[in-house]
Amino acid sequence: MSTFRSWFSIPRGSHFSLANIPFGVISTASSKTPRVAIAIGDHALDLEVFAANNGFKALSTIQPHQTVFSQPSLNDFAALGRPIHSVVRKYIQSVFAEDTPYPDVLKTNSSLQKEALLPLKEVQTHLPFKIGDYTDFFAGMHHAFNAGSLFRDPKNALQPNYKHIPVGYHGRASSVVVSGTPIRRPNGQILLNPTAEEKVPTFTACKKLDMELELGAFVCKSNNQGEPVPIAEAGNNLFGIVLMNDWSARDIQAWEYVPLGPFNAKNFGTTISPWVVLADALEPFRVKGMDNDTEILPYLQEKEEKSVYDIQVQVDIKTQSGNTSTITKTSARNLLWSFPQMISHHTITGCPLQVGDLLGSGTISGPTPSEYGSLLEQTENGKKAVTLSGGEERRFLEDGDEVTITGVCGSDDDALVGFGKCAGIIQPAMKF
Amino acid sequence: MSTFRSWFSIPRGSHFSLANIPFGVISTASSKTPRVAIAIGDHALDLEVFAANNGFKALSTIQPHQTVFSQPSLNDFAALGRPIHSVVRKYIQSVFAEDTPYPDVLKTNSSLQKEALLPLKEVQTHLPFKIGDYTDFFAGMHHAFNAGSLFRDPKNALQPNYKHIPVGYHGRASSVVVSGTPIRRPNGQILLNPTAEEKVPTFTACKKLDMELELGAFVCKSNNQGEPVPIAEAGNNLFGIVLMNDWSARDIQAWEYVPLGPFNAKNFGTTISPWVVLADALEPFRVKGMDNDTEILPYLQEKEEKSVYDIQVQVDIKTQSGNTSTITKTSARNLLWSFPQMISHHTITGCPLQVGDLLGSGTISGPTPSEYGSLLEQTENGKKAVTLSGGEERRFLEDGDEVTITGVCGSDDDALVGFGKCAGIIQPAMKF
Repeated sequence: MSTFRSWFSIPRGSHFSLANIPFGVISTASSKTPRVAIAIGDHALDLEVFAANNGFKALSTIQPHQTVFSQPSLNDFAALGRPIHSVVRKYIQSVFAEDTPYPDVLKTNSSLQKEALLPLKEVQTHLPFKIGDYTDFFAGMHHAFNAGSLFRDPKNALQPNYKHIPVGYHGRASSVVVSGTPIRRPNGQILLNPTAEEKVPTFTACKKLDMELELGAFVCKSNNQGEPVPIAEAGNNLFGIVLMNDWSARDIQAWEYVPLGPFNAKNFGTTISPWVVLADALEPFRVKGMDNDTEILPYLQEKEEKSVYDIQVQVDIKTQSGNTSTITKTSARNLLWSFPQMISHHTITGCPLQVGDLLGSGTISGPTPSEYGSLLEQTENGKKAVTLSGGEERRFLEDGDEVTITGVCGSDDDALVGFGKCAGIIQPAMKF
Repeated sequence: MSTFRSWFSIPRGSHFSLANIPFGVISTASSKTPRVAIAIGDHALDLEVFAANNGFKALSTIQPHQTVFSQPSLNDFAALGRPIHSVVRKYIQSVFAEDTPYPDVLKTNSSLQKEALLPLKEVQTHLPFKIGDYTDFFAGMHHAFNAGSLFRDPKNALQPNYKHIPVGYHGRASSVVVSGTPIRRPNGQILLNPTAEEKVPTFTACKKLDMELELGAFVCKSNNQGEPVPIAEAGNNLFGIVLMNDWSARDIQAWEYVPLGPFNAKNFGTTISPWVVLADALEPFRVKGMDNDTEILPYLQEKEEKSVYDIQVQVDIKTQSGNTSTITKTSARNLLWSFPQMISHHTITGCPLQVGDLLGSGTISGPTPSEYGSLLEQTENGKKAVTLSGGEERRFLEDGDEVTITGVCGSDDDALVGFGKCAGIIQPAMKF
């Protein structure tokens, strides 16, 4: 029996159990101004309405700050810091608990229930943060190895820096979108015949459109320029985690990426799941990441060995024919570097991270092909097809394909800590 | 005799002549809230005060929008669009003209002169925009060739994509600072012995700290995700230009940059000049950029041949001993790609640019060593020293060095269109 029993009806198997309490930004048809909410079972609890109706009356800590719930992003709530996130989450858990010490707040308050508890299917979710900068790392070592094997050779698949440094690059913040936003296939310069002596690009719609299974982490504490975040403190800067699909145009990337890295191949869209699972909620699922056989520098050495999360992640593709196929199933533990290590590395130069910044993990792949987090790896850059249910084949994504990432922690169906969905459908390229 | 005669005393040789009217954000000791201003001669005209005192009474176009001048950034003013920037600049020119048709606005209004015209030496300048995303291009072909020659060989110095594509990468927006902000030397991972078979990095303060002479361009028009900006319209998205120093840690870069490009080597600080010179003010100085002997794709083909600017740019280093030496003198015409081309390329995938985004030109170098825009090129990556006045030598920047970029268009000392200074001093690295 779960310790997370609620008086409120939370379906068994819900990602948003009482053990979770993820935060997001919502609006509804009748109230179009985006504001902060949590997800619980099949409902959202509108925290603006909840706060306005004395919902936080037993939590004095949050009372001076309740305007954070009326904001169109989580930035102001996040900036209150992890100790506040922790007490707010615990308080909401206690409000929903079967034996809540505050029954009059919601359990016996049917008018507030009616006003503040909104069916998720009637709720519009929005980008949860106003994102200042977005950085994408490359910490999925199987992915790095597989990609390196395809583009160089298996003997030199990983660059000499890979096990010393959480390799990353600056991404494009303005094109991060929330789950459900369609993604238009990009146009760009592509080398149709890469082996020809004369390298002449063609202007065309991307022919190698791919997905990348990642986690995204949001920053909740800013550091001043010139002041690195020590590894022992970096966990305090971590608000929470979302699922992320870093859509990639492999053919645009292959032509453009020397010598300064991916640019247009990655800037047309990055999709994240709408509900941010707090770092606190993920604590029970911390595990050791991938073994690093290299002695890393002290500024990256963590005291805590368990610093990544055992999130069961999955990628499904639904084609225009309506068939859905699971193409990837793996764990987010397949990372060589943790988010605290990424934060310490990112700031070691003095780079200021700011509340609302997004950090991507890099593509997460497990060791076997059915665990690979991109089509690039699964199809060996389009050399062989993957077969979907109904007999369809894919080398890369086709127009009308909908890619959905899901992720969940735990095995107790009454206490799952899940992420919901991170989904996007491919629209045809703009015609020129 | 200049056509830009003013009743107001503008020193001969001022960068901020009546032909210029650059926009920025200021505060003063007695009024600490940042707001919008223009620079003229040795003064700033506080546009918040000017607007509040009926300064725009003869310009009905701007009257519904006057709150833009009370903002702590130029974003809202920029978002009004180029036609508005143009009429506001022309109106201010007419207010300051010797034969102004509006003498009572300022010429004969000594109380408003006293309140709104502030000596620049008493004014604090701020970052002119709230920058969403910052992208750095690589359009300085001499620089690209020189860097490629150093790291590969002169025969393959330019990558095959270079003349087809305005190569660029996403930079770090949060570390862009305004001129005068000190830059702390970064720490990081460096390969002290790059030729050793075993690649083991050392944690140390950067030993190859460099500057990069660039222009920065601010975007004044957002495009929706999925909707590219056609080359014929891209000029409308260009607010104006600043000088930019993209500080670079060459040794950190050398170890980290494969395979995803520069990251920590560039994210500790980028300095820009405070006064943004409007695209309109630069119109008379448009020239043809560098010859491209390659047939470029139609989406990059400009109707207007003269699409870069003949800005005379210069880099000075002042050492702790107090000696100042000019190390670079060249023209910003040494670019293969224009800002409109960069905008069209950046958005061809559907990437949304937003008002306030910053685009860097890439390092500007002329064809000869005294025109090189980085120490990397001048010293051949530290192989040979440059001699400064007083006999000091530099391979890379030392603590206490102050680097100042200046830039100016025109030769009529009464009608210069200049940028003022983009300066920063190097502070010692944090000790660990």
